[in-house]
Amino acid sequence: MTTDAPATPDDSFHIFDTTLRDGAQREGINLTVADKLTIARHLDEFGVGFIEGGWPGANPRDTEFFERARREIDFRNAQLVAFGSTRKAGVRAADDPQVRALAESGAPVVTLVAKSHDRHVELALRTTLEENLAMVRDTVTYLREQGRRVFVDCEHFFDGYHADARYAKQVVSAAHEAGADVVVLCDTNGGMLPAQIHAVVRTVLADTGARLGIHAQDDTGCAVANTLAAVDGGATHVQCTANGYGERVGNANLFPVTAALQLKYGKQVLPAGALEEMTRISHAIAEVVNLTPSTHEPYVGTSAFAHKAGLHASAIKVDPDLYQHIDPERVGNTMRMLVSDMAGRASVELKGRELGYDLEGDRDLVGRIVERVKEQELKGYTYEAADASFELLLRDEVDGRSRRFFRLESWRTIVEQRPDGDQANEATVKLWAKGERIVATGEGNGPVNALDRALRRGLERLHPELAKLSLVDYKVRILEGAHGTDSTTRVLVSMSDGGAEWSTVGVAGNIIAASWQALDDAYTYGLLRAGVEPHE
Amino acid sequence: MTTDAPATPDDSFHIFDTTLRDGAQREGINLTVADKLTIARHLDEFGVGFIEGGWPGANPRDTEFFERARREIDFRNAQLVAFGSTRKAGVRAADDPQVRALAESGAPVVTLVAKSHDRHVELALRTTLEENLAMVRDTVTYLREQGRRVFVDCEHFFDGYHADARYAKQVVSAAHEAGADVVVLCDTNGGMLPAQIHAVVRTVLADTGARLGIHAQDDTGCAVANTLAAVDGGATHVQCTANGYGERVGNANLFPVTAALQLKYGKQVLPAGALEEMTRISHAIAEVVNLTPSTHEPYVGTSAFAHKAGLHASAIKVDPDLYQHIDPERVGNTMRMLVSDMAGRASVELKGRELGYDLEGDRDLVGRIVERVKEQELKGYTYEAADASFELLLRDEVDGRSRRFFRLESWRTIVEQRPDGDQANEATVKLWAKGERIVATGEGNGPVNALDRALRRGLERLHPELAKLSLVDYKVRILEGAHGTDSTTRVLVSMSDGGAEWSTVGVAGNIIAASWQALDDAYTYGLLRAGVEPHE
Repeated sequence: MTTDAPATPDDSFHIFDTTLRDGAQREGINLTVADKLTIARHLDEFGVGFIEGGWPGANPRDTEFFERARREIDFRNAQLVAFGSTRKAGVRAADDPQVRALAESGAPVVTLVAKSHDRHVELALRTTLEENLAMVRDTVTYLREQGRRVFVDCEHFFDGYHADARYAKQVVSAAHEAGADVVVLCDTNGGMLPAQIHAVVRTVLADTGARLGIHAQDDTGCAVANTLAAVDGGATHVQCTANGYGERVGNANLFPVTAALQLKYGKQVLPAGALEEMTRISHAIAEVVNLTPSTHEPYVGTSAFAHKAGLHASAIKVDPDLYQHIDPERVGNTMRMLVSDMAGRASVELKGRELGYDLEGDRDLVGRIVERVKEQELKGYTYEAADASFELLLRDEVDGRSRRFFRLESWRTIVEQRPDGDQANEATVKLWAKGERIVATGEGNGPVNALDRALRRGLERLHPELAKLSLVDYKVRILEGAHGTDSTTRVLVSMSDGGAEWSTVGVAGNIIAASWQALDDAYTYGLLRAGVEPHE
Repeated sequence: MTTDAPATPDDSFHIFDTTLRDGAQREGINLTVADKLTIARHLDEFGVGFIEGGWPGANPRDTEFFERARREIDFRNAQLVAFGSTRKAGVRAADDPQVRALAESGAPVVTLVAKSHDRHVELALRTTLEENLAMVRDTVTYLREQGRRVFVDCEHFFDGYHADARYAKQVVSAAHEAGADVVVLCDTNGGMLPAQIHAVVRTVLADTGARLGIHAQDDTGCAVANTLAAVDGGATHVQCTANGYGERVGNANLFPVTAALQLKYGKQVLPAGALEEMTRISHAIAEVVNLTPSTHEPYVGTSAFAHKAGLHASAIKVDPDLYQHIDPERVGNTMRMLVSDMAGRASVELKGRELGYDLEGDRDLVGRIVERVKEQELKGYTYEAADASFELLLRDEVDGRSRRFFRLESWRTIVEQRPDGDQANEATVKLWAKGERIVATGEGNGPVNALDRALRRGLERLHPELAKLSLVDYKVRILEGAHGTDSTTRVLVSMSDGGAEWSTVGVAGNIIAASWQALDDAYTYGLLRAGVEPHE
C-alpha cells in the first residue's frame, strides 16, 4: 500500500457505478426517469468514470433515460453505459433488436451480460456451450464495429468457475479476443469469500491475459472485501452501487470501496476533492431513492465517527487520530462527540461562504447559527437536501430578524371522498401581505396541491413574479417509523424558476403542516431570488 | 475449505460473543438487566461458546447481571465471561478493586483489556511501556491463581503493530507467558483491510506461539472479512456481536461470521441444528434491543433471499440453487419472490405457492392475476413491499368476487391551522357494515391518523378483533416526481396483530385517498387473518 499515485484518475483503473441498473433491483426502490437523472448528476459529481444507466430497448423508462441524459446532462467525469445482453441464440447480432437498441442508445460504452456458467447456459439460455461462445463473440464484434467500447459482465462467473473452470475461462477469452476492453467477473449469487475471489482472479488473469473487472454481491457480508481482493489479484475495474443498493442483500458499496482505494491503497480513483463530498452525496442519493440513510454505513453514516464520551474523552482531545482510523473530514463526515451532524462551525462558515456570506469574522453569529441548526435537526429538519431553507435561516440570523413577503393568519384543507365516488380537495388560506388581508381558496388533486394553488392565487396580484415559479419535486418522509401514523413528517420541496432550482424543508406532526412550511420557504426564497424586496 | 469437521464444537475454536458488552456501545442501544438476561438466553440457544456479559465492578448494572445470570440461567452451550482491565499502574493486582471484582463476579472466564499500542500506553494510561507489560503479567497471573481462565484483548493492536511491532508482540508474549489462554488482536479503530489482518496474524502467531483471537470493528465495511482473514492466518477465536451491533459502524456480525465458518469453511462451530435458528434469533435480539431488524442483513434479512427479476423466474422454478448461494432454510430464512412489473406467470405461480394457493393447474386464472398486477403496477402500485394487498388481489381473483368487511359511502378530512397557532385534524367516515350504516369521527395528529381512528371507532363494536391490530409503519412516496404536488402518491402501511406483521399499498392522486386504500386493505387482511368471515 503506497501513497504514490497520479493526481487524477485515468483509464488504467475504472470506478464503474451501476446504481441505476443493478442498484435499482433493491427491494423497495422504484426509480422514475427524473430520479435517475438526479442520481446520475450526483454520481458524476462524485467522479465515477462510468454510470450504467439501464437497459435501453428492454425497458421504455430506460430508453427515455438515455435520451434525456444525453440532452440534459453535461457529464464532467462519467461516461454513460448502456447495459444489455448478448444476442439471442440462432440470430445474427445485427438482426437482434435488443442488441441494436444498445448501439442506438447513443451511450459510448456498452456492458454486455454473458453467461459463463455451463448450467446457466443450458437451463436459462437453453442453448449449447458453443453457441453461447459465438453469441459473446458476435455481439462484442458487432458493437465494436458500431464504434462502441464494450465491457462484458460474466454472470455467475465464480460459481461457473468452480463447476467448469475451463469453460468459464473460454467465455472470458471469447470476449477478450472479440475486442471487449474489460471482462468483468461477477459473483452474481454473492456467495464468495475474499480468499476465493483473489485466487480465481489471479489465475484467470494469468491464463487469459484479459483486462479484468469485479462485480460483487454482498450475500456473505464481504462485497467490499471481495472487491478489494479482486483488485489485489489484478482487477482494474470495480463495479459498485451507491450505499450498496442492490438485489437481495445488495452490491459492493461504492463509498467504502472508493474510500479504501483512495485512503488505504493510495490510488487516486476519484477527481481531487471528490472524496470530501462522499457523505453529502451518499445522503442525497438516499433522499432520491427515498430510503433513510443508514446511520451505521461505513465512512458516511452519522454514527460512523460518533464517540461515546467518557473514558477516552481527554485522550481524544489530545490526539483524535488515536481513536479514528481516518480523519472523518476526508470523507465529508464529522466526529460526532463534539458537534452535531452538519452544524460544525467550519461547515457553517464554508456553507455561508458558498452562499456569499462571509461569516468568519463573527464567532457569535456562527455560534448562533450552529445552535439553530442543531435545534432544528433535533426536531427532524435536514439541511443537506434543503439549501434554500438553510439560506433563509442563515439570512434571518445575519439580519437579526425574519423578513418575509407574507404573514400567515390561518389555513384549512378539506379532502373529501364523496358517496358518488368523486373526490374533492379544497384549501383556504388567510394571509397578510403589504398591509392587506387576503383570503384565497384553491382546489387541486390533493390537499397540498390545493394549498399551493390557494397561496399562489392569494399572492399573484401583489407578486406577479410568482407566475414563473413552479414546484418540480415533492418528497415525504415519515420519521420515527415505529409509531405508525402517529409520527413526525418531513417534507422536501423543490421549486424552479425555469433556470435555477432550490429545495426547502418542513417538519411537523402532519404532512399538510409540514408541506405548508416547505412551500412558505420555497416561495419566499423564489421571490428573494427574483430580486423582490421583502415587506413584512 | 473442507467439509470434514467434528459434529459438535469443541474448545479448539471459539465463537465469542460480546453483544452485551461491546455491542451495547452502539448509539441508541440502552440495555436493562432483564434485556441482557434475555439476550444471553438467545445467544446460548444459538450456541456461542462464550458470552461476555459486561464489566462487573465498573458498572452496577453489570454486577447485577452476573449475579442474576448465575442464578437464573442454566447455560447449555455458553460460558459467561467478565470483562475488565489490567491492574492500575503502581499497585498490586490483588489490591486493585476493579481486578478483584472480576474474580468475584463468579464468571469462569475473564477477558482483560490491555494496551498494546505504545502511544496509547503513554497518552491514555500515562505510564511506561515496561510498567504496562508488568500490568499485563501481574493481572493474568493473579486471575489464574484465582482459578479463572483468562483471555487478553490487545486494544488497538493492529495500529500499534504498525507503529511499533516489537512492542505490540511483547504485550502478546507477556500475556501468553503469564498464562492467558487466548490473546485477542483487536482492530479497535476498525481501519484495517483483510490482507493486512491476515499478514499480521500470521507473523504474530509465528513469532509468539500464542493462541490468537480476532476482534474486528466494521469501519471499512470489512469486519466479517477481516475476521475470516484472521482465521485464515491462524486465529482460532473470533469475537462478534449479534447483528454487528457496536460502537460507530459496529462490530463483526456474529451471523455472517458463523454462517461462513460453518457453510463455507465446513467448520462445525455451533451445535447441530443451531444455524437453522439464526434468522429467528437475529430478529428476536433486534426486538429486545428495540431496533428494526435490517431487511438487508446477510443471511437473515427479509430481503436476503428475495428475487425481483422476472427474467430468471422460470429458471428459478427449475433449479433455485442456480440463483442462491445457499439454501435459505439452512439459516432459517426463506426465498421470496417479489411481484414486480418485470414479473411474469412463473413469479405469480411461485408467489401463489408461497401463500398457500396452488395456481399451476389454472392458466386462465394466472393470466388474469398477471394482467391485474401489470395494470395496477402501471398505476403506481407495487406489490413487492405489500404482500397482504397482493394476497387480497389474488384471493379476489381466485374467488371471482371481492368480499370485504365494510363498504365505504364517503369520508372527509379537515386539517386546519388556526389563527391562534393551534392545529386541528378531524376525519369523518360513513360506512356500511353488516347491513348497518355507520358514521364515525376521529381526531388525530394528522389527517391520516384521524382517518384511522374514525375507521376503528366505526367498526370496533362489530369487530372487537380490531383492538389487537395496530399500525407499525407508514411510508409515503410521491411518484412521477417531475410534477410537483400535482402527482401520484403511493402509501405503504404495515400492521401488526402483536405477532405477525403485514403490509398493504394504496395509490391515488392524493395522500389521504392513498392512505385510505392502504388502511382498508390492512384492516381487511387483519380481520381475515383473525378468522372473521367477510360479510359484504
